[in-house]
Amino acid sequence: MARSAAVASPSPWTRPLGRGSREGAAIKRDAVLRAAAQLFNEKGYHATSLDMVAERLSVTKPTLYYYVASKEEILFECVRLGLELMRSAIAAAAASGGSAYDKLQAAMHEYALIVTMDFGMCLIRVGEDPLAPASRKQLRRLKAQIDHEFRTLVEQGIAEGSLAPCDAKLAGFTLAGALSWIGRWYDPAGASSAEDIARHSIALLMRGLSPREEGPA
Amino acid sequence: MARSAAVASPSPWTRPLGRGSREGAAIKRDAVLRAAAQLFNEKGYHATSLDMVAERLSVTKPTLYYYVASKEEILFECVRLGLELMRSAIAAAAASGGSAYDKLQAAMHEYALIVTMDFGMCLIRVGEDPLAPASRKQLRRLKAQIDHEFRTLVEQGIAEGSLAPCDAKLAGFTLAGALSWIGRWYDPAGASSAEDIARHSIALLMRGLSPREEGPA
Repeated sequence: MARSAAVASPSPWTRPLGRGSREGAAIKRDAVLRAAAQLFNEKGYHATSLDMVAERLSVTKPTLYYYVASKEEILFECVRLGLELMRSAIAAAAASGGSAYDKLQAAMHEYALIVTMDFGMCLIRVGEDPLAPASRKQLRRLKAQIDHEFRTLVEQGIAEGSLAPCDAKLAGFTLAGALSWIGRWYDPAGASSAEDIARHSIALLMRGLSPREEGPA
Repeated sequence: MARSAAVASPSPWTRPLGRGSREGAAIKRDAVLRAAAQLFNEKGYHATSLDMVAERLSVTKPTLYYYVASKEEILFECVRLGLELMRSAIAAAAASGGSAYDKLQAAMHEYALIVTMDFGMCLIRVGEDPLAPASRKQLRRLKAQIDHEFRTLVEQGIAEGSLAPCDAKLAGFTLAGALSWIGRWYDPAGASSAEDIARHSIALLMRGLSPREEGPA
């Protein structure tokens, strides 16, 4: 989870990688998706062409087509990967020991960091809008699972008394919204690190969720 | 500020309006933009064609071109109008009497409602991504003004002691993010009204911003 959105990864085509090996193919496909996500995040989806992706990786466009069928397929995979990262990070936080309060805070932390990384940022900045209805539907199902995880953690926090009673669904959306938005404005070259931003936003939100007098500080 | 995103407005071409009058032209242009924003919000920008906009208004596509030059121009105007609504609502809240706390809360309320309406929702759901760089830059300048208004209100709240000391820039982004996200998931046919959602999210955020022991409840 250390890779920042700012770093343009080196092209795996410039390193020897066991040409034709299955591992090499997976690494190269990942590099195509990552380079595309970075360009989508910087320039916008529409302004990004496959020529630019090929150029960033120092390969020809026909080479790209060995790994991906189209710009739409790339976007679908980038958004799906962003959602999968979130889903598994939140599930891991929810499965960890500790109180619901701690789990929620850990899940929010993961979420906030993921939206500052290539695929998570692409999920927020571009999202599924440019895709065909069937693809959009599939991605929205994944999103709904994430919303559900947040809501469940809020409900558990209320049940254990660490969070003030509230509408858990609306609270979950408020948290996800505040954290998602970080992916919109986060600038890796800016004054605040992703870690600082995450900590600050989460502190504000957890204070908002906590019981007024006696909650965890 | 009463018009919900759910209501498909009646086409002004079906009512007598003083054909060729300047007022009639402005009303019709607004109807084109509004119908397009509704379709963008429902189906996505890419999946929406000018034929669909014309159909929704019961006019021919050539009639649309009397009011707008292209789908890109429509999106630019929809996003610009959404931002203008926000900017003027926040400026009005900031210029009203009362404490910075009250002004911030009022500005957040306006913001939350605007993102559930046609142009505000289009700003959040589609945004400037599909547009050319010059247009995107212009819209981002407007966005930056809104961020600045929020930050200023947070700074004033800290100065007057109604808000806990914090990084006002990051807090402003967190507020704007949480409220913006409402425009992503708000469903006019859903269980919660825009007003309920706004009140709930804002209560959570204001609690998060308030000093721990002695702030306004």
